[in-house]
Amino acid sequence: MPKGLKSTPQSDGFRMPGEFEWHEGTWMLWPTRTDTWRLGAKPAQEAFAKVAKAISGFEPVTIGVTASQYEHVRSILPEEIRVVELSSNDAWMRDIGPIFIKNDYGEVRGINWGFNAWGGLSGGLYYPWDQDMQVKIKVLEIEWKDRYDCRHVILEGGSIVVDGEGTLITTEQCLLHPNRNPNLNKVEIERYLMEYLNVQKIIWLKHGLINDETDGHVDEIVAFIRPGVVAISWTDDPDDPQYPILHAAYEILSVIQDARGRQLEIHQIPIPQQILLTEEETRFIDRTYSSYQRDKGLQIAVTYVNFYICNGAVIIPAYGDANDCKALERITQLFPERKVLQVHTREIALGGGNIHCITQQQPAP
Amino acid sequence: MPKGLKSTPQSDGFRMPGEFEWHEGTWMLWPTRTDTWRLGAKPAQEAFAKVAKAISGFEPVTIGVTASQYEHVRSILPEEIRVVELSSNDAWMRDIGPIFIKNDYGEVRGINWGFNAWGGLSGGLYYPWDQDMQVKIKVLEIEWKDRYDCRHVILEGGSIVVDGEGTLITTEQCLLHPNRNPNLNKVEIERYLMEYLNVQKIIWLKHGLINDETDGHVDEIVAFIRPGVVAISWTDDPDDPQYPILHAAYEILSVIQDARGRQLEIHQIPIPQQILLTEEETRFIDRTYSSYQRDKGLQIAVTYVNFYICNGAVIIPAYGDANDCKALERITQLFPERKVLQVHTREIALGGGNIHCITQQQPAP
Repeated sequence: MPKGLKSTPQSDGFRMPGEFEWHEGTWMLWPTRTDTWRLGAKPAQEAFAKVAKAISGFEPVTIGVTASQYEHVRSILPEEIRVVELSSNDAWMRDIGPIFIKNDYGEVRGINWGFNAWGGLSGGLYYPWDQDMQVKIKVLEIEWKDRYDCRHVILEGGSIVVDGEGTLITTEQCLLHPNRNPNLNKVEIERYLMEYLNVQKIIWLKHGLINDETDGHVDEIVAFIRPGVVAISWTDDPDDPQYPILHAAYEILSVIQDARGRQLEIHQIPIPQQILLTEEETRFIDRTYSSYQRDKGLQIAVTYVNFYICNGAVIIPAYGDANDCKALERITQLFPERKVLQVHTREIALGGGNIHCITQQQPAP
Repeated sequence: MPKGLKSTPQSDGFRMPGEFEWHEGTWMLWPTRTDTWRLGAKPAQEAFAKVAKAISGFEPVTIGVTASQYEHVRSILPEEIRVVELSSNDAWMRDIGPIFIKNDYGEVRGINWGFNAWGGLSGGLYYPWDQDMQVKIKVLEIEWKDRYDCRHVILEGGSIVVDGEGTLITTEQCLLHPNRNPNLNKVEIERYLMEYLNVQKIIWLKHGLINDETDGHVDEIVAFIRPGVVAISWTDDPDDPQYPILHAAYEILSVIQDARGRQLEIHQIPIPQQILLTEEETRFIDRTYSSYQRDKGLQIAVTYVNFYICNGAVIIPAYGDANDCKALERITQLFPERKVLQVHTREIALGGGNIHCITQQQPAP
């Protein structure tokens, strides 16, 4: 029976597994905001569907859709993808959905963090976010999973990455941003991460990418391949605005030890050319007061490390960029035991995120 | 993975179990129609919650609610009741939800019958019923259950009762009603019941109760206690308008053999005084063109056999009627191995049904 527990995951022996550990399945949401997604969200929906189909070749996928889209979505997706009614304000399951944790006996639970649409009324991306706030509970209810409520701490899943063996990487820009948890200092935030994700070592990068709407989510910069091994977004061009950020991140990661005392093995994945919103791409986006303005010339941060690791596969972005092939090649080398599939995701990127941002893994029992 | 199957339950060895067989859990919906339920549906919601709580003492209960009610419902129901987002036009899960079937290996699937709000545009209870039509699929998706689509046949769960051993009881008034399946004759309807519910013997009663909005659902008249044993609604008062109907049903049941060649053992359960809607009870019902009019003096059929059998218990209605105790006593005698709990359900009855109408069992694997 689903219950809100009064203890903490750490005290109960639960930890957040690495994304590369075995999944029960993947959760996604269906994009519909016409002030985020152009052309009535139809091109984005097509891209989301492609990502879902790619993952569903390897593990069960569930997509949450609002009631009015249910019949349509059920009719266009293959039967092996589960469609459930699940309202949300937008479709970033990584940030809106629950983080799942498990113990050594294979029990799985979830964490119900607070959420404020990436900054609330001071720089957040839209208002209101009332439906998003219910998504974590709704997912856990469908799965009959108990939960730990920690709604007084704002935390998005994309702002952290973990190795499942005690190490967490995040950015100061996001987790210490005054529009997230202004009442908590760094030590207090570390304590919550340790207690709820059961990590022992927190590696703080300074900044996320320039032009990242989320105030610097780490999942655009770095991903754990497996414990002790990370991929990092990279450029060798000193004129690229992302250059100083990525090199600063590299410097930190290259000298620090993880929770088990290992030196990290770091693999550089070149970034593609960053996106500038075109006239064509902004023409049919609804303008509303209560959401982030997406006008011609808006710069959008894009990378390949915002990929998603599922059972036996890795789903990575493609942009029609010169680096698409190089990224595919490097990431394929990093995952010799998995298939690496590339999905064109510019339409997802136009909304401010990518494959990792729109997925959330549920670990296998 | 949930799939629409092309075969039939009969050909695949699936049958509809008796309600008294072991359940995985119970499905319900949350009432909100303010043109069905008085006072913003709040008194009905309270009664539904009491039924849910009673059942949840014995088996897992899931309640489907529309997005706008989710937060409220989650906050007022105990944690052991699962709340999922699930839109519907009204809250009669017996009729709107899927009928579950299982095979000898314990696999469970569902049937996606057609639904037209108890008569469509010719005597149905409201328009539209678009959300109701999606409930069966949504429930089966949440449970990852495969389904048999039979949407060209209109069938409500409350219009049939089965013994799980090949016998089905129904009424001609409902199943042969021209507003249900005008293109199918009795033989064709029997064939669908046999193919999809895997029954071999169909017992046809003539009429359902007078004043039954559903065109004579059998679940107000008769319930299987176990194979070979039924409870029947009863009155010995020849002036009671239900008298000829119940006596005619009794005559049929008392001479017929079930699918296994047994003579049925029939137990009479006295009906309570039938309900007349009061001025007070109709004052705060919204008036709409597209739903059944509920005015002062409307007569509503009520019985005790519209109870619900769950694991280890039977939940039966109470009305504050002189027969409440007698019904409790008799039904308790019929279920020596179960607890029998009584819940006051006048507020549910005002909407046209009772405990059996608002529940749907999911058999255990």
